[in-house]
Amino acid sequence: MELMKMTMHEVKEYLKTNQTIIIPIGATEEHSNALPLGTDTLTAEALARKLGEVSLRIVGPTINVGNCHSITYSFHGTISISPTTLINYLKDYITSLHKHGFRNFFFVNGHGGNIAPLRCAFDELANTLTNSKFLVTSWWLMEELKELYNNAGHAGRGEVSMIMYIDKSLVKTAFLTEEKREIPKYYVTNDLAQKYITETGIINDSQEGSYELGEKLFNASVEAMLKLLKHLEES
Amino acid sequence: MELMKMTMHEVKEYLKTNQTIIIPIGATEEHSNALPLGTDTLTAEALARKLGEVSLRIVGPTINVGNCHSITYSFHGTISISPTTLINYLKDYITSLHKHGFRNFFFVNGHGGNIAPLRCAFDELANTLTNSKFLVTSWWLMEELKELYNNAGHAGRGEVSMIMYIDKSLVKTAFLTEEKREIPKYYVTNDLAQKYITETGIINDSQEGSYELGEKLFNASVEAMLKLLKHLEES
Amino acid sequence: MELMKMTMHEVKEYLKTNQTIIIPIGATEEHSNALPLGTDTLTAEALARKLGEVSLRIVGPTINVGNCHSITYSFHGTISISPTTLINYLKDYITSLHKHGFRNFFFVNGHGGNIAPLRCAFDELANTLTNSKFLVTSWWLMEELKELYNNAGHAGRGEVSMIMYIDKSLVKTAFLTEEKREIPKYYVTNDLAQKYITETGIINDSQEGSYELGEKLFNASVEAMLKLLKHLEES
Amino acid sequence: MELMKMTMHEVKEYLKTNQTIIIPIGATEEHSNALPLGTDTLTAEALARKLGEVSLRIVGPTINVGNCHSITYSFHGTISISPTTLINYLKDYITSLHKHGFRNFFFVNGHGGNIAPLRCAFDELANTLTNSKFLVTSWWLMEELKELYNNAGHAGRGEVSMIMYIDKSLVKTAFLTEEKREIPKYYVTNDLAQKYITETGIINDSQEGSYELGEKLFNASVEAMLKLLKHLEES
Amino acid sequence: MELMKMTMHEVKEYLKTNQTIIIPIGATEEHSNALPLGTDTLTAEALARKLGEVSLRIVGPTINVGNCHSITYSFHGTISISPTTLINYLKDYITSLHKHGFRNFFFVNGHGGNIAPLRCAFDELANTLTNSKFLVTSWWLMEELKELYNNAGHAGRGEVSMIMYIDKSLVKTAFLTEEKREIPKYYVTNDLAQKYITETGIINDSQEGSYELGEKLFNASVEAMLKLLKHLEES
Amino acid sequence: MELMKMTMHEVKEYLKTNQTIIIPIGATEEHSNALPLGTDTLTAEALARKLGEVSLRIVGPTINVGNCHSITYSFHGTISISPTTLINYLKDYITSLHKHGFRNFFFVNGHGGNIAPLRCAFDELANTLTNSKFLVTSWWLMEELKELYNNAGHAGRGEVSMIMYIDKSLVKTAFLTEEKREIPKYYVTNDLAQKYITETGIINDSQEGSYELGEKLFNASVEAMLKLLKHLEES
Repeated sequence: MELMKMTMHEVKEYLKTNQTIIIPIGATEEHSNALPLGTDTLTAEALARKLGEVSLRIVGPTINVGNCHSITYSFHGTISISPTTLINYLKDYITSLHKHGFRNFFFVNGHGGNIAPLRCAFDELANTLTNSKFLVTSWWLMEELKELYNNAGHAGRGEVSMIMYIDKSLVKTAFLTEEKREIPKYYVTNDLAQKYITETGIINDSQEGSYELGEKLFNASVEAMLKLLKHLEES
Repeated sequence: MELMKMTMHEVKEYLKTNQTIIIPIGATEEHSNALPLGTDTLTAEALARKLGEVSLRIVGPTINVGNCHSITYSFHGTISISPTTLINYLKDYITSLHKHGFRNFFFVNGHGGNIAPLRCAFDELANTLTNSKFLVTSWWLMEELKELYNNAGHAGRGEVSMIMYIDKSLVKTAFLTEEKREIPKYYVTNDLAQKYITETGIINDSQEGSYELGEKLFNASVEAMLKLLKHLEES
Repeated sequence: MELMKMTMHEVKEYLKTNQTIIIPIGATEEHSNALPLGTDTLTAEALARKLGEVSLRIVGPTINVGNCHSITYSFHGTISISPTTLINYLKDYITSLHKHGFRNFFFVNGHGGNIAPLRCAFDELANTLTNSKFLVTSWWLMEELKELYNNAGHAGRGEVSMIMYIDKSLVKTAFLTEEKREIPKYYVTNDLAQKYITETGIINDSQEGSYELGEKLFNASVEAMLKLLKHLEES
Repeated sequence: MELMKMTMHEVKEYLKTNQTIIIPIGATEEHSNALPLGTDTLTAEALARKLGEVSLRIVGPTINVGNCHSITYSFHGTISISPTTLINYLKDYITSLHKHGFRNFFFVNGHGGNIAPLRCAFDELANTLTNSKFLVTSWWLMEELKELYNNAGHAGRGEVSMIMYIDKSLVKTAFLTEEKREIPKYYVTNDLAQKYITETGIINDSQEGSYELGEKLFNASVEAMLKLLKHLEES
Repeated sequence: MELMKMTMHEVKEYLKTNQTIIIPIGATEEHSNALPLGTDTLTAEALARKLGEVSLRIVGPTINVGNCHSITYSFHGTISISPTTLINYLKDYITSLHKHGFRNFFFVNGHGGNIAPLRCAFDELANTLTNSKFLVTSWWLMEELKELYNNAGHAGRGEVSMIMYIDKSLVKTAFLTEEKREIPKYYVTNDLAQKYITETGIINDSQEGSYELGEKLFNASVEAMLKLLKHLEES
Repeated sequence: MELMKMTMHEVKEYLKTNQTIIIPIGATEEHSNALPLGTDTLTAEALARKLGEVSLRIVGPTINVGNCHSITYSFHGTISISPTTLINYLKDYITSLHKHGFRNFFFVNGHGGNIAPLRCAFDELANTLTNSKFLVTSWWLMEELKELYNNAGHAGRGEVSMIMYIDKSLVKTAFLTEEKREIPKYYVTNDLAQKYITETGIINDSQEGSYELGEKLFNASVEAMLKLLKHLEES
């Protein structure tokens, strides 16, 4: 159930029995020369819609562009919303839904740079809204996927596999490389971005991936999210 | 060519010969009990993608949620980004693309409430960015569609037809009504919204629409936009 | 009745029977070498005061400086308030008046660049204030003046005539020229401003104007505004 | 020389030999039942124009509405711009002028609540603009007027006299009262405004004033400002 | 009683009988080569704590960094919060305390650049909070210290003495100089800072100071503040 | 070496050989009825100063108040800066230091709610500043302390021990309780705060702590931070 494809009437009916909404948030960000710029968004959207299908919960409009203000900002095709603007955007988005009666906000996140702005937005809403819960899941950080994901990194084996599973035609396999970058424990200004990322946009990883791994990652993600959704609604 | 499905490499190559990007911007807003909440976004996105296909120009990520802060704000399912936040969002979106080399920004707009924030964003960027042009087309306001559209209004005959053409399954025909509202020439605060809009979310129009009219509106829009795109690039 | 020349007591009395305020908003912007920088403000103020006189409605303090962030921004003497700041300014201005009991806000606008910020301000107030109506009239866009104005443009025949009627001494006729610019349908960054405007600050028009045309434009504007004022109050 | 009545050409010529601009800033604020709401603006404007006349310096557009967010905010007719918005407004105003070549910004201020926002705006511009000087004069605080003004206070003898001198018809003498309020040394929230101000809007003063005192205050102000203007330009 | 060293329980108990909080606000700003960068903060904090001790009032967390956006901004070690950000910071700080029941806000200020942002913050809160009073004391501006302080200026005799009294080890006496600057009556952009300040960071003063003078200034300040505190609570 | 106790001259000298600054950031937040409101700040400050002492690096002014906008916001004594304001504050703080030549920003953080705003601030600065690195350490999240800390939680065994070690007199042992709260995986609005926290302000933990554990935690933290500091400077 995608909210954008439902009518006002259908949303009104839904809210009589359930106050949960699933919201996909991704990014438009370079993902090497092999993966599409929409990797994070496509993954978040596919996961969120599957979760919506399985759980019979409404899925809100996808947030296609996120915060990529550091590291990948200068790479061709990256579009970034600054953290402060993203916080305000999220506050407006959530506040509108709260007004109609939604109370459980389940974000399916596809991009690391969104986590801090999401947390900030929740904090700023904590005293403004009432009776609401906010949960963010980032598939690559979930305990249940730790082994499968194996610390794969940006544009790495994990994302390659996910996109292979979601839409194989979008992976330009000829451009897969074996590059790697030792990541420091600190952030850097963008003129020092090469400390975090290779010239072709890879962080921390070689590129071997597969449809099979993608399928496993995808299904494990949905399963784990389903548990969290129940946790959100029932605890 | 959707930017989200292209790689960094492909965008870099494209920019060597062309600096145009087409950007769909819509809204998630009640459209009566018959049309989907994503009517404006779905229309803008379909038009933009067709235009991209015909012109071989890149289409940026769709802006799914727009400014609906007045009139429809309280109706179930409407999600609104405040004008000020939308202006900042547009500035970040455009500035990222400008950094990579895009210079011609062609917005395909599906929602009236976005026009003012778009204009404000362009004005704020006029002194910050260089060598760039911005054009917004709102299909229902185009001279070429005047006769076909015939002043149809929100959730009216024009939009019904467009959605019928884009995805017939999304029109809940049983809920089409003959309601109408005489629109004043002023804006109102939301507690007075009934001056602008009926209880079922209709502005200024009865509901008779058709696939055929949708097809005509759609094609006439794409044709007119194609001319404007050439105007943008060549004048 | 100018609010700035009235006392607190007089405003209190006025509000017992009427909740309308007329607000002139203009710009301080180059208007070629022949017209004064305050052309838009002087026109809006003169119209608003005449309207106030005829209708016995209060006229608020003139907003002397508006949004000229694009096109004329670099021309000598232009002072511009950015759209975002102007939105906030308008919100504060209107909110103060709403607090005292004003409910009908009738803006007499003299400058195109103010229209989008005004619309944004109204949208942001739509859910914050109650029971209020907002109307903007821009004399050169009024249906009733279409023929008289004849698409005259910035610093053109229409504005020349208006200023001749309002204060003839302010038109430096020696500097009137016959320049013209073919206007594109898009906005541009300021380094490309010559696409919109000539070196002497003219848009789209030759300069022949007259006191007589000014008188006609002025009176037709006041008459049309008076109708809109009634519409605002009575519908 | 009022900038609003000059042409672009005239400003350009002026800047070849002088980079000073005089800017009147006032307020629209209750001034008891005897004085007009525009008292602060009318005074600042009259002083600034006289100073411009005497010194042959350009006078910028008057800032008609200032910061009255505390004490008088709830009194009928007061219009207030919040400090933060006023700071942004001043920054835009000054930055536009700086772009054209103005470097000496001489503010003639008519309202106490503007002093802090003016100082904040200057501080925020100190690192953004170059080679510029900012001076604010508030006539009632000038050393040279100390004896004449004699600590008269809001809507008191000093302001009554000034308005009598500027436009006698604007003083409603029947409403002059002998009220007084002992002012504390702290600020208060507006629900406690009666600590600062009487019910009829008087602070700290009885109401005896005269045209003669007004003339003296006015002339002494202009004379003192003229000295400061030279100080600004020559030191 | 420092709030940071008290427990939640102790604050709750305190508020049953008293609603006053003392808040030290200073700056981290060059103070010549002889005085520590924290001069303003150390002084404000020492005064506030002494005042708290004598009056048995709670002292809130010290605001260590203030607004130094002009004049000293480029000198090594200066850290500055822009006026607008400082206003928002103060609003959040005060609003939190108001929520718990504090109503009398007594600021002990150590830095001139904070006065305008403090005033702006109070004005913005005047209509948002209720039943509250705000008082700022800046020791070097107090009537009672006029003679002792004798117009000493930034990094001058007064501050040298204060720091000698507070912590003698922090004064690098070898770097005390006899420099002086004639101060203009206007503000300047930072590229012109030498109009206000010497190369070694001195404003308006020679450097002779002493522990004895520091002791006198300190005690006179506390005494004067104690009176103001009573005034705040009892009037 | 505390920056606030150093002179301009000393900072200038330091920067010739080192560009690192250690910045303590904490919170003023309820920590049950047993621990002081400044627990997070006191801990961060003590750790930062020890680290500065051991490494001979400058320690910047402590940020005493942080983001506590959710969960503990309503508990007596909590002072919170909203995430957006804190982001702006951090940007101003860091930008000032960058101007003087600092390039390695090592934050010693004492409070979980600061992590997201810190990350947002770094992202917003990534394209504005140059050649800089940012590192945040939160002692209770460090790998090296995992076993010792043992998931202790807010106002729990870990913090009790830390404060016992830093200043035993600040622990009101009579108020130590054995309360516990099962923490959900989602955030909540403040009206639902009891899902996260007990009535006496405890999260997830019983209260047994000791000076000995505090000593171990403190020393292990400093040791681990020292390694990170070298990593920041040398990699």
